[in-house]
Amino acid sequence: MQGFLNGCANAIGADHVVTDEALMLPFLTDYRQRFTGRALAVVKPSTTEEVAAIVKLCNLHHVPLVPQGGNTGLVLGSIPDESGKAIVLSLNRLNRIRELDAANNTLTAEAGCILDHIHSAATDAERLFPLSLPSSGTCTIGGNLSANAGGTAVLRYGTARELCLGLEVVTGEGGIWNGLRGLRKDNTGYDLRDLFIGAEGTLGVMTAAVLKLYPLPKAKLTAIAAMTTPDKALDLLNIAQRYCGTSLTAFELVSRYAMELVLKHFPALSAPLPLTYGQYALIELSDSESEDHAADMLETFLEYAIEEDVIRDAAVAQSIAQSQSMWQLRENISAAQAMEGKNIKHDIALPTSSVSDFIAKTDQLLQAHFPGCRMVTFGHLGDGSLHYNVSAPPGVPVEAFMDCTPEINRIVYDSVASFNGTISAEHGLGALKREELVRYKPPIEIDMMKRIKAAFDPNHVMNPGKILI
Amino acid sequence: MQGFLNGCANAIGADHVVTDEALMLPFLTDYRQRFTGRALAVVKPSTTEEVAAIVKLCNLHHVPLVPQGGNTGLVLGSIPDESGKAIVLSLNRLNRIRELDAANNTLTAEAGCILDHIHSAATDAERLFPLSLPSSGTCTIGGNLSANAGGTAVLRYGTARELCLGLEVVTGEGGIWNGLRGLRKDNTGYDLRDLFIGAEGTLGVMTAAVLKLYPLPKAKLTAIAAMTTPDKALDLLNIAQRYCGTSLTAFELVSRYAMELVLKHFPALSAPLPLTYGQYALIELSDSESEDHAADMLETFLEYAIEEDVIRDAAVAQSIAQSQSMWQLRENISAAQAMEGKNIKHDIALPTSSVSDFIAKTDQLLQAHFPGCRMVTFGHLGDGSLHYNVSAPPGVPVEAFMDCTPEINRIVYDSVASFNGTISAEHGLGALKREELVRYKPPIEIDMMKRIKAAFDPNHVMNPGKILI
Repeated sequence: MQGFLNGCANAIGADHVVTDEALMLPFLTDYRQRFTGRALAVVKPSTTEEVAAIVKLCNLHHVPLVPQGGNTGLVLGSIPDESGKAIVLSLNRLNRIRELDAANNTLTAEAGCILDHIHSAATDAERLFPLSLPSSGTCTIGGNLSANAGGTAVLRYGTARELCLGLEVVTGEGGIWNGLRGLRKDNTGYDLRDLFIGAEGTLGVMTAAVLKLYPLPKAKLTAIAAMTTPDKALDLLNIAQRYCGTSLTAFELVSRYAMELVLKHFPALSAPLPLTYGQYALIELSDSESEDHAADMLETFLEYAIEEDVIRDAAVAQSIAQSQSMWQLRENISAAQAMEGKNIKHDIALPTSSVSDFIAKTDQLLQAHFPGCRMVTFGHLGDGSLHYNVSAPPGVPVEAFMDCTPEINRIVYDSVASFNGTISAEHGLGALKREELVRYKPPIEIDMMKRIKAAFDPNHVMNPGKILI
Repeated sequence: MQGFLNGCANAIGADHVVTDEALMLPFLTDYRQRFTGRALAVVKPSTTEEVAAIVKLCNLHHVPLVPQGGNTGLVLGSIPDESGKAIVLSLNRLNRIRELDAANNTLTAEAGCILDHIHSAATDAERLFPLSLPSSGTCTIGGNLSANAGGTAVLRYGTARELCLGLEVVTGEGGIWNGLRGLRKDNTGYDLRDLFIGAEGTLGVMTAAVLKLYPLPKAKLTAIAAMTTPDKALDLLNIAQRYCGTSLTAFELVSRYAMELVLKHFPALSAPLPLTYGQYALIELSDSESEDHAADMLETFLEYAIEEDVIRDAAVAQSIAQSQSMWQLRENISAAQAMEGKNIKHDIALPTSSVSDFIAKTDQLLQAHFPGCRMVTFGHLGDGSLHYNVSAPPGVPVEAFMDCTPEINRIVYDSVASFNGTISAEHGLGALKREELVRYKPPIEIDMMKRIKAAFDPNHVMNPGKILI
């Protein structure tokens, strides 16, 4: 392998081929610290041409590569396995914003650009890049696109896929494809862009992307509403969509237990409504007119929802500070769960019309098998997307409960499948869910994926073992 | 071939295997009546299973098939070549709306459903299916998706691609893939859906789709504004987006000559503004609140645009009838062109920031080579998408001018390429532009397309000669 490593050093400079175990460690351990893989080296090119040179070397020497951005993925997609045969291809040095075309509402960023930097560049040009994720200070746009990230603004603006107009990709054999088109319409052949998006680095390495920008809204308003059950939250969603159209930019569900966990572990935060209701909805409106207009719209539909007995109470943020603290209640759920101890997580989505029935049925099934287990249910209800997490019953040791993961996964995923849902709404498959994929996808779909994989990565070097077994 | 035809008759009934030349003719001639191909038969299955049976027979007997919906395509994509070796696979009998899930805002339609029938079903459920095309009384959703149709509502709702959540497809070898998922988020592997969308029937046969619905807007308002030049129209677009956000649902450019042509050939229509300006913009707002709210918004930004000298005049429709006649001015441009005589058409798109420079530069190039030629320039300016059509100079015989098509195409497409635009914004490639594709796409992109084609259609039966040579 020394010949390969020398080749890498010649191509991009010895300083950027890291083989020191301690220096490699952060690149080998996943975000949730569940797994540490091994690698031949961490290789850090700084240009598209350098990426192409490394991919060619990998093909020549049959060395697998694992593309990595901010390494914030949740499905073990951006770290290598324990064989130690692969390299990590870090895109962090490809971090330039190449162009901002305000009149075309586009920004061209390299794969290693941190999401928050893209937000800032857009804001400086009085534009909005709407992708909104808790990890935005660390995650990179290449990773966001490779995983087709979701987040809290999907209801209005779509997933990462829908925010991308064009790509530059180093192919599985080390060619460079310049597909950096900033066009809203382009019907010239097969949609290669959307094939690379969401492929988790198994078909090629994204090196840059043309992203869609939007006008900055003139006002943003946040509110929290309380209701008894998830079906009431769905009724509220329907009313909100009718009254507010696309001004509705976020609609998040938070169960009471999720809210309690945040308040327990983040004592500086306070609940804007009494903790006596079953469910809470966090609502955001963005308005192109004025704050007054948005406030009128928000108050009108909340009043209507109270009159119709859809919600029991509501609080509208009266300041930016209040709005931020409402959002912190939502954004700190994951951290609060971690502080409380491990639980069994599911990143699922359903037709919105089935969310309520799914929760009722699945909660019941889980209680029947694991009496007293506690549900941390929250997520992007507007998209039918839920984080449906199961915590140990009071008194049951966490580690013993975690051993039930396979059984609990089976109950949850079988239920998801019975409602035509998905077992990965926004995190992807990585190495974590590739076996589940085979269970829940029809064989013909797996077969088509394998044909694409074989066509694009004939030498089996691109992030092997991810998505497909 | 009698064995093959008998097999088809056994699979779907002899009545649905048409070999009579006169009965086949409408299926063999393209929408613009430029070309008539030949076929072994027109085969009309009525279920997904029947489609699969036919595709299997085609594989077995090495008979190419040409999927066809409403046959309204503009690039010779849905008719066979003159060899007479292929069958036309008509999807017209797969025309059921299988499901409408109002709470999930989805509708599941079979490929042969006529677009207007889908509009009606959505409206009956107080929902909007926004795809808006002049051929909506004839075209089918399968064709719309296969060509990734655009139209006048893309600015707000996206192309056909963005309106589809899931597909059912008969693969190139006759398998059935049920990908009819009604999910807003689903990150479980490669994006097969978007690969079939826009593939013009060269990778598989779509048999059904899950479509996105939207709340019906409470009000729709139409206006026409007049300006001197296309760059002023782009300034107006920018103002409209700032003032109206997503309420702006259409922004169409119509050049004076295009307007004059419509008024000449449709004398019942009248111009809402004097014909003394260079360019006109047709604007539509959709509002989730009220007609008054939309009217305020529209008048405010038009007044601002007049004050800022962006536009010279504007007329707001005061009734549904007025609104319809404004739209008829736009929608009859194609018909008016046909009545005036043939011209050389280009379906292009550019970054919106380059549209004005493109028009100025390309108009000048064309005038230099073909003095006096007349430009019928119109289209979906909000998406950077133009119908950029060239008519003969006064006094030059149309047929002589049409002989200059290759030279004029070269000037236009080279100019498009120099601005990073596309030579097919919304009509696709079909058999008409496949040679151009090779000229303007990088070889690495063509190579990736060919790999996909080989992986999905190993026996070369799926709509051969379309998109790829």
